[in-house]
Amino acid sequence: MQKLINDPQDLVSEMLDGILLAHGDQLRAVDDPHSIVRVSAPVQGKVGIVTGGGSGHLPLFLGYVGEGLLDGVAVGDIFASPTPDQILEVTKEVDSGAGVLYLYGNYGGDLMNFDLGGELAELDGHTVRTVVGRDDVASAPKGEEQFRRGIAGLFLLYKVAGAKAAAGAPLDDVVAFTERAAKNLRSFGVALSPMVLPAVGKATFDLPVGQMEIGMGIHGEQGIARRALQSADEIADELLGGILADIDIPSGSRVAVLVNGLGATPAEELYVIYRRVHRVLADRGISIYRRWVGEFVTSLEMAGASLSILVLDDELAHAVDAPVRTPFFEQS
Amino acid sequence: MQKLINDPQDLVSEMLDGILLAHGDQLRAVDDPHSIVRVSAPVQGKVGIVTGGGSGHLPLFLGYVGEGLLDGVAVGDIFASPTPDQILEVTKEVDSGAGVLYLYGNYGGDLMNFDLGGELAELDGHTVRTVVGRDDVASAPKGEEQFRRGIAGLFLLYKVAGAKAAAGAPLDDVVAFTERAAKNLRSFGVALSPMVLPAVGKATFDLPVGQMEIGMGIHGEQGIARRALQSADEIADELLGGILADIDIPSGSRVAVLVNGLGATPAEELYVIYRRVHRVLADRGISIYRRWVGEFVTSLEMAGASLSILVLDDELAHAVDAPVRTPFFEQS
Repeated sequence: MQKLINDPQDLVSEMLDGILLAHGDQLRAVDDPHSIVRVSAPVQGKVGIVTGGGSGHLPLFLGYVGEGLLDGVAVGDIFASPTPDQILEVTKEVDSGAGVLYLYGNYGGDLMNFDLGGELAELDGHTVRTVVGRDDVASAPKGEEQFRRGIAGLFLLYKVAGAKAAAGAPLDDVVAFTERAAKNLRSFGVALSPMVLPAVGKATFDLPVGQMEIGMGIHGEQGIARRALQSADEIADELLGGILADIDIPSGSRVAVLVNGLGATPAEELYVIYRRVHRVLADRGISIYRRWVGEFVTSLEMAGASLSILVLDDELAHAVDAPVRTPFFEQS
Repeated sequence: MQKLINDPQDLVSEMLDGILLAHGDQLRAVDDPHSIVRVSAPVQGKVGIVTGGGSGHLPLFLGYVGEGLLDGVAVGDIFASPTPDQILEVTKEVDSGAGVLYLYGNYGGDLMNFDLGGELAELDGHTVRTVVGRDDVASAPKGEEQFRRGIAGLFLLYKVAGAKAAAGAPLDDVVAFTERAAKNLRSFGVALSPMVLPAVGKATFDLPVGQMEIGMGIHGEQGIARRALQSADEIADELLGGILADIDIPSGSRVAVLVNGLGATPAEELYVIYRRVHRVLADRGISIYRRWVGEFVTSLEMAGASLSILVLDDELAHAVDAPVRTPFFEQS
């Protein structure tokens, strides 16, 4: 395997060590070095936002802890959930008394452990609410949204929840606002190559050169179709078409768009995808109010991309514009 | 080949189209859509900074056009130099009368075309000066620095030159300051996998799994050693050792560090490298004043990383801290 690592078992702890050495002015570990909060936590009067999940998706999750986004993160091993104890520990550290929102992706292990961690936190006197990202239209059909996975759209949920909490909104309002965004959010992706789990040392699945898998998940979960690799424009049309078939976006709408690279796809290619998405949306009378193009949610060194679209109202548009300052992402 | 592209011949123009659609609030094309300047160009009273080179290295070059960094860029085809006409066109567009600095990497085609473009610009009444990045210690031995290639350290030259120009310094001072930084700058990299040129469709060189090439260039230029892949700590020690053998960095020094991913290397791995660099430098009494970890100068989807170190004095430290706002990089 072609990786810059030492013992694969040490990868996550060494990565965290490196991140804390690099960004100690913005991040600090709680007792467990796998539980990270912003240095200023708890921020007085502000709702705390906590996320978590497996490692291997940087900048997700850790890179979005900071001003305007998240307050803390419970970091699991590669593609593995964090423990309830970590979640409890982070909750205690970020709760200023205004309560805490758990905001993470819809995966079984994460759900179980966040629910357990939240129960422990409630016993400890914290008020905890949960919103789960289920943006991946490929992971379950319309009508079965509760089974959909959370993928790159999580970044957009962080963005709007973070802005609302930073503005001083109470917990109920932050929850309602984030749920409104989640209803208006869809993602759809394509994989062009597998990733290699460090502890395994070989590709997690077989995807021959010349093939692609539409709808594959960010841990290599099976997609909805595997076929010959198409052109960027055809792929962009298919991703956009899948989203537009799932959510009605009338002419005149404003949207936020994320074209996300999964790890090994050059930014050059992501802009070719963005170009097509921009033009097709324009043709439909839909304007892109704000866009991000780059690696926001990765799957180690998987090649491929995903498209996320958030349909905006005035308040959501204001929230996506709000400034952010984190180790991995700044927006002025 | 596993790429999100249409016709390979259209990749650069479609990428530019996508970037201008996405970032039209910050960037605009001159007559030739491959010649891009910041929307505010020329900035009155400010020295203009122009760079250029082949495509395939995003965020280099195009991503660093904006406040606090560059004023314009002449974009070549994949790994190919821009033309003298493009360079002339960009020069005209960014020169407010304070003169223009050409700042780019030491490659034959770029040198020839920037010199030609500069001669045309001088005939047109513009004052033009040149500083060339030669930071790659692997590309020629000590004493033959004039033959060294420019790699990821270019970002650090942009950073300090951009800060000096933004502060209103005259052209001679911007040149002298950038040359001082160039003397204090070294880079050294390792490749773990080849890249695929879109127009060719297969790997540019053969690098078997289990091997690495130390000192390989960002276009796949031959390095100084190929051998079995080592651990991240061993590789970090070798990159750092190569730099420290080339430039004296006494205990008590302050440095800026860039750990740069070449395209397909996960950020998780880059932080493992950063960790080792940080600890070894700390053991030698060298403090890291500012660091960047991520993809700043890539080679399409090549796996690997490079380390760049800039030795700081007070004025250089002030310059690396200065704020930046560009489509691909913000620093507050």
